[in-house]
Amino acid sequence: MSRKYVISLERLNRFCTDLFKGYGVTNEDAKIFAEALVKTEARGVKSHGVVRIKNYIDRIVSGTLDVTKDITILKETPTTALIDGNNGIGIVISKKAVEIARKKAEENGIGFVSVRRSNHFGAAGIWGLELSGDDMIGICATNSEPIVSAPTGKTRALGSNPFSITAPAKKYPHVSLDISNGVMALGKIYEYKRLGKPFPEGSWLDTNGNPTTDPNINPIPEFIMRPFGMHKGFGLTVMMEILTAILAGGEFGPQVSSVYRDIDKPNPISHFFIAIRIDYFRELNDFKATMDELIDYLHELPVQSGNSKVLYPGEKGAAVSEKKLKTGIILGEDVVNELLNMATDKGMDISNSPFEIAPDDFEEITQI
Amino acid sequence: MSRKYVISLERLNRFCTDLFKGYGVTNEDAKIFAEALVKTEARGVKSHGVVRIKNYIDRIVSGTLDVTKDITILKETPTTALIDGNNGIGIVISKKAVEIARKKAEENGIGFVSVRRSNHFGAAGIWGLELSGDDMIGICATNSEPIVSAPTGKTRALGSNPFSITAPAKKYPHVSLDISNGVMALGKIYEYKRLGKPFPEGSWLDTNGNPTTDPNINPIPEFIMRPFGMHKGFGLTVMMEILTAILAGGEFGPQVSSVYRDIDKPNPISHFFIAIRIDYFRELNDFKATMDELIDYLHELPVQSGNSKVLYPGEKGAAVSEKKLKTGIILGEDVVNELLNMATDKGMDISNSPFEIAPDDFEEITQI
Repeated sequence: MSRKYVISLERLNRFCTDLFKGYGVTNEDAKIFAEALVKTEARGVKSHGVVRIKNYIDRIVSGTLDVTKDITILKETPTTALIDGNNGIGIVISKKAVEIARKKAEENGIGFVSVRRSNHFGAAGIWGLELSGDDMIGICATNSEPIVSAPTGKTRALGSNPFSITAPAKKYPHVSLDISNGVMALGKIYEYKRLGKPFPEGSWLDTNGNPTTDPNINPIPEFIMRPFGMHKGFGLTVMMEILTAILAGGEFGPQVSSVYRDIDKPNPISHFFIAIRIDYFRELNDFKATMDELIDYLHELPVQSGNSKVLYPGEKGAAVSEKKLKTGIILGEDVVNELLNMATDKGMDISNSPFEIAPDDFEEITQI
Repeated sequence: MSRKYVISLERLNRFCTDLFKGYGVTNEDAKIFAEALVKTEARGVKSHGVVRIKNYIDRIVSGTLDVTKDITILKETPTTALIDGNNGIGIVISKKAVEIARKKAEENGIGFVSVRRSNHFGAAGIWGLELSGDDMIGICATNSEPIVSAPTGKTRALGSNPFSITAPAKKYPHVSLDISNGVMALGKIYEYKRLGKPFPEGSWLDTNGNPTTDPNINPIPEFIMRPFGMHKGFGLTVMMEILTAILAGGEFGPQVSSVYRDIDKPNPISHFFIAIRIDYFRELNDFKATMDELIDYLHELPVQSGNSKVLYPGEKGAAVSEKKLKTGIILGEDVVNELLNMATDKGMDISNSPFEIAPDDFEEITQI
């Protein structure tokens, strides 16, 4: 069994910031970049946390992600903006787009920011939360490389196009939906392989486009994802492609290269960010109090035997995050080695590594 | 076998308008009311077409739907409005809300209209299409009486909360997603019963909250719908409840009585309507041309053997509608009798009935 390491959020943040700076990212951008990834990691969304840093840095090194570029505002009105990301850091571009959307909502009730030529923006839920803040409803999405088939299709048609809808409550953390439009994330295939379990019917197609339940039938990156809820999830992915890439005038569908396989090609994707100021409709405190009522109602719903109470969207992430703030974040040996290697490649001094070996009985919190 | 009747869209429109007028609806409102239902019927969405008129009129008669009331604008800014529907006709309220949202988008790029104390607004897709028109993206939703369980729940938790996202193309009809958040509509149970087929696993709970695949286990109205894609569909229904009822300050969750069973109680539901002017982001013709490219791409996708080409969201409805404009609409004897009975109850002369018996070999178009 490989080792596990533990690190506090603060130290991980500092390490990642320094790492990005080592690769030419400005001080300010490096902080934004690191913070979003560590926040995601803390919420237990490991697939979109620090494990992704290797891919970001591979792209910086290959020159397909340009850390020197700022955004360009191509078109702007009091309620809207169209932004060219200039192939910069998706997370930094998104942070700026969120700020613009919120400022417009602050002044005019609603802000809608459309972005093209960005890069992978991390977890949609992070931007949902930032858009929402303490007083708004946030909606955002991104397109992504084709991976999801049409319900009756045999090939990768469109991205899984994750999106988030997020709203604040009073005594509870945000209600924050963050989903993509596939039945199951690629990363989950590892678990099925490890457990020797067949996929649920209808979740994957093999390399040749035939439905399969066998997780060993081809290499993991070659599986073709089916849309969740068939025509409903596929319809959502079509609409998210329209609201992101087609509205922004960015690359869509098969024009989007693979973020993983095509390291030497730009991966120009599009996003949108909407901020809606709640008090343009209702007194903010009343809204939040009603949100608490809704959450209390969901918590009290009778459940099938053997299940714990119903959780609302975003509840698990918030609870995991609160616990990890105290216990620190657990990372596998492979991820830590990757991070340290990237650091030494840029001559960073890692003799005093911030990653400590976790005790054998250290229990990782990913569930509540 | 019961008889089938055929009627042209124009005559059905006129009949329904007169019928509503007979029940005290103003000329103008009756036209709006009839037009939306006939349009829905023409698109092949029979569950939300003229079959619903009986319920609307039962509510008018019982006084729980007030046809004399206009909307009140409670709060308004250049980009937003909060509307009290005053328990009027949901379809008429929605038509007005759409007009307000579009006007605001016309002037300021985006319009967001929130509505409370409305009634059943028909099919979400109709309002998506109206919001979109020729130049905007439309997004809308409604909440509804609780019918969908939480993924692990045993009871009806929230409405199926249908929503629509709609955008115009150039040479093709609108791309228009119109879905609710349940695995399967209640109405489909009739088909499973008729064919003696078990439900797909995970689609329904019985009256006692236990998973079932037996369509005969209890009366149809007592089945409990499961969310599509489990936590994803449930998350969507939670967020739609927030974007409709909680933002508007309307009734939410269990506060919403049943539109079918509680005829003597008001059914005060909430909606939202967003219009986004496309040319605030991109030249409208470029956007539409790219929409056509997306559609062409979807049409050319390879499909599993035995399937015809991939259809985009809204394509089937548009094609059916085009054909029914020529052939007329087919209605079952039960629906026609219901309509005629409601007419005679108000002393309307139906000696010259506009419904003609359809030839035995008349083929109804519900598929393309």
